[in-house]
Amino acid sequence: MSQLETAMAMTIAVFDKYAKMQGNTRTLTKAELKTLMEKELPNFLSAGKDKDNLDKIFKDLDNNGDSQVDFKEFVTFVAALTCCCHNYFEQKGAR
Amino acid sequence: MSQLETAMAMTIAVFDKYAKMQGNTRTLTKAELKTLMEKELPNFLSAGKDKDNLDKIFKDLDNNGDSQVDFKEFVTFVAALTCCCHNYFEQKGAR
Repeated sequence: MSQLETAMAMTIAVFDKYAKMQGNTRTLTKAELKTLMEKELPNFLSAGKDKDNLDKIFKDLDNNGDSQVDFKEFVTFVAALTCCCHNYFEQKGAR
Repeated sequence: MSQLETAMAMTIAVFDKYAKMQGNTRTLTKAELKTLMEKELPNFLSAGKDKDNLDKIFKDLDNNGDSQVDFKEFVTFVAALTCCCHNYFEQKGAR
């Protein structure tokens, strides 16, 4: 697999790993999202430690309001976060 | 880095690698996108071999019409593609 294909496969693998922890194996519950963020994004978000913050992120991600985050909602979040990182490194590099 | 952070960093690295090949180092020209797709997505797209297809994809990606694909436009494309892959594997798994 190419580097980009590997990155895509890894994103899918991370979602599936946490989605199958409980309930619907194709979506993330709030508890699953919390665990995912604590383990996978420890440097980005303090949401794991801050319940209000987690509630807000979950509500933002749960676009269709079904109290579950599906893969499309998750990947949109990852894309936005990747975009923020890219901007950050670009600005850092431009200094 | 966690698995998800690695996937995000790899996506950024792929974009930057091809974006700096020519012209504006922060965006992809159509030629750079063509090379990226041939090298990084050989299993997904025949666009590298089909000029009309490449033109269509480039036009779709170039959301703001500046004849350049910026990182935000690229990451949106990767997210959509990842979503298609996830759906494909889900359907395959459900059979």
